[in-house]
Formats: sequence, structure tokens, C-alpha cells
Amino acid sequence: MSGWVAVAGLGPGTDDLVTPEVRAALAQATDIVGYIPYVARVAPRAGLALHPSDNRVELDRARFALDLAAEGKRVVVVSSGDPGVFAMASALFEALEGREDAPEIRILPGITAMLAASARIGAPLGHDFCAINLSDNLKPWALIEKRLRLAAEADFAMAFYNPRSKARPEGFARVLEILREACGPDRLICFARAVSTPDEAVRTVTLAEARPEMADMRTVVILGNSATRRVGPWVYTPRSVP
Amino acid sequence: MSGWVAVAGLGPGTDDLVTPEVRAALAQATDIVGYIPYVARVAPRAGLALHPSDNRVELDRARFALDLAAEGKRVVVVSSGDPGVFAMASALFEALEGREDAPEIRILPGITAMLAASARIGAPLGHDFCAINLSDNLKPWALIEKRLRLAAEADFAMAFYNPRSKARPEGFARVLEILREACGPDRLICFARAVSTPDEAVRTVTLAEARPEMADMRTVVILGNSATRRVGPWVYTPRSVP
Repeated sequence: MSGWVAVAGLGPGTDDLVTPEVRAALAQATDIVGYIPYVARVAPRAGLALHPSDNRVELDRARFALDLAAEGKRVVVVSSGDPGVFAMASALFEALEGREDAPEIRILPGITAMLAASARIGAPLGHDFCAINLSDNLKPWALIEKRLRLAAEADFAMAFYNPRSKARPEGFARVLEILREACGPDRLICFARAVSTPDEAVRTVTLAEARPEMADMRTVVILGNSATRRVGPWVYTPRSVP
Repeated sequence: MSGWVAVAGLGPGTDDLVTPEVRAALAQATDIVGYIPYVARVAPRAGLALHPSDNRVELDRARFALDLAAEGKRVVVVSSGDPGVFAMASALFEALEGREDAPEIRILPGITAMLAASARIGAPLGHDFCAINLSDNLKPWALIEKRLRLAAEADFAMAFYNPRSKARPEGFARVLEILREACGPDRLICFARAVSTPDEAVRTVTLAEARPEMADMRTVVILGNSATRRVGPWVYTPRSVP
């Protein structure tokens, strides 16, 4: 029997947002590999080995998944959200570089955090937008600043992943400064924490009102473009630019 | 009994990528509103009224959905992909402006085309990226060109929706010219047509090899960033920038 690896997106939290395709892969799996809190979302059953691992070991985890598949195992690497957005799919392909053996690989999409957040907020990403990972673990901080300024000049709405960590709380404060400078104090900014879980909390403020502590590592932050507006309790970006 | 509107994302095509949340909303609905091919994806049943409408009447469709809900109907407005990405959610909030009656509204996320495409290609959106609608129905063409140049300068991977229509086939040719100029001839570009349907076709070429006719209105186009590379049959963008 030949092994395979599926890199699956579990969506933002609730089982209601897990696709049937991902559910089927989990049902067929012999092994689940992933970051501790994501593996904890998979129901244990007889014949299923769970391999939770810590954060920041993505490449080791990907190699381990490929090794298991080479032994004939059916491996699901679980990511939160979508595996292709700041998650495990890229790490798997990095781990594949230079290997002689390539098992069958499938990437199974999921509901990524910014789209789950956007749905709760209204439609802040209803026009052109960008997605930026604010962690500087894997890129220079100067590149983040450059991208923020260019995205503001392009008048993109922006979704920010990993806005704030304990290790570098000052980074997000700097991001807010740059955005206030580039987009003005009245621009709307939405903080969506743990969407679709019992801890869900969503709020929208202006950049003038925004504070770094409104975000933590479970928060996706969405900045509107220059036309983003409120209607009732909702925030949306119009489809058209006159 | 009070009415409601849910704006639901049906994903890219297959039922395997429709979330349980969307399936539940469809099961509770009395009325389905949407563009003809999307309404055709909902199974008819007794007590369910289908209201298909033509393209480019999004605002009328949204008003109709709100009117039905005001009459006490349980209305699902169906979008392909995710309703918040170049789809019906923004139109619904536009239609809500100035109305006295606001029914209960829910936005139900779905697998948007670029993430379904990305999964088939590998992980081309594995680093910072942007999403641009190339249709100039709702914005000036000059703004599209400006955004392309700034996105290239930011070294974003880029996902393009609505790359090419019968009404303006020359637009996408111009886009390819601008991208070749800004990103060079060797940059990888992926054409993903009708992902997850029987008509699925995915190919990756360099910008030098790219031709406008490789895209149609069922295609999502993904341009890699400067680090995007092939490994075996896959294309991915590394997570890190040195």
C-alpha cells in the first residue's frame, strides 16, 4: 500500500467550517502531524497516530510527514485556516527539495482566517486587497515596512496575519504608526479574534483609536481601503471606484 | 416568523468544498437568489423558490433579497467561491444603505477561487500576496495598472480574478506586458481554470511564455513573487526571505 501526504486546512475553529474533503482525508489517515493546538482539533480514534509538535519547527514537521508517507503511512498535516496561506503547504514543498522519493501529495484548501473574519465584519475585503504576515521571524522588518507603504499607496484593503507576539510586541505599534501616517486617522481597522470559536471577539475602530493591545496572536487585523465604510453594525468596502 | 438573508460561498465548484455551515443554510432556505450558474448548483426541492438572475445586476439582486427577507422569507444569496471576495457580500451592504428595515444578515465564508487554485498548483501564495480584480467594469483601468506596478514593487505574489472577458480581451494582454516589464521574463505565472470541476485545467509557464488566450473568465491567474519556484510538478513560494 503506498503512502501519501495531504496538507489540510481545518478552517478558523468550528467544525462547521471544515470542508467535506478535509473530513474525508482525516477519516482515511493513519497519522496526523501538526502544531499542538491544531492536532488537538482532530478526534482520536483507534488506528490513528497523533504527532503534535511545537511552533517554529515547520520544516522538521514537513520532513517527518514525508518520512512517514515513505513508510506507507497516510498522513494528514493539519493547518489552521488554509494550508497555503502562511501555513504548512510551503514548508512541505521546501522539505521536498532534493528528496529522491516523492509520495503522492494533495493540498486541501480551507477557510483562511481573513475570510472568516471578513464574513463576521461584513465585507471589508470586497475590493482589491493584500495579505501580509507581520511576523519578522522569516523576513526582514524593513521589507514589512516597505510593503505596508506600497500597499497603502495602492489603496489596497489589507489583512494582517500574526500581528503581535509576546516576543516582539513593539512591531505592531510601529505598524499602526506607519498606517496612520500613510492612511490618515479616520481609516477603519477591524480586529477579529478567534473567529468561530467560543472566544470570538470582533471590533472596528479608526486608526486614531487603534491600540497595539487590541491584537494578539489569535487576532487577524483587517484595514479598510479609503472607501471602506460602516452601514449599521457592518463594515464593507464598496465594489466600485468612481 | 422573521426573515433573514445569508450570503453564502459555494466554493469553486465541487460539493466537497462546500462547508457544512453553507449546507445548513441552504437546507433552511425558502428562497435562493443569485447569478444563473450559481443558483443552478443548488438542488431543487419542494418549498424552495429559485431566483436566478443575469450577470452585472448585483445591486438589484441584493435589493430583491432584502425585500424577500422583509416579507419573512429565509433567503440565501449564493456566490461562487467566497462571498466577500469580488462577490455578493459588498453588493448586499451597498443595497442596505439608507434602508429602514434591516433583516438578520449572515455572511457565510467559502473557499475562494485563488485558494482552490493555489492548492492545485502547490503553494504559490505561501508568502505575502495580493488579490486584484482585473475587470474594469467597476473601476478605472489606470487604477489597475497602478496597482500592478506597486504590487510588483512590493514583490507580492498576485492572484488575478476576472482576467479576461469577451468584452475587453485586450486588457489582459496589457496586464501581461506590464508584468513582464516589472517582473522580468522568467517570473512564473499559473493559469488555473475551473478548479474542482470536470473542466479543470492548470498550467504554469514563465511570463515570457504567457499568452492572453491562456486565460478566460473561468480562470484565476496567479503570479509568483521573485522567489517562487518549481519542485517536481509543484510551484511554491518559500515562506522566508533571507
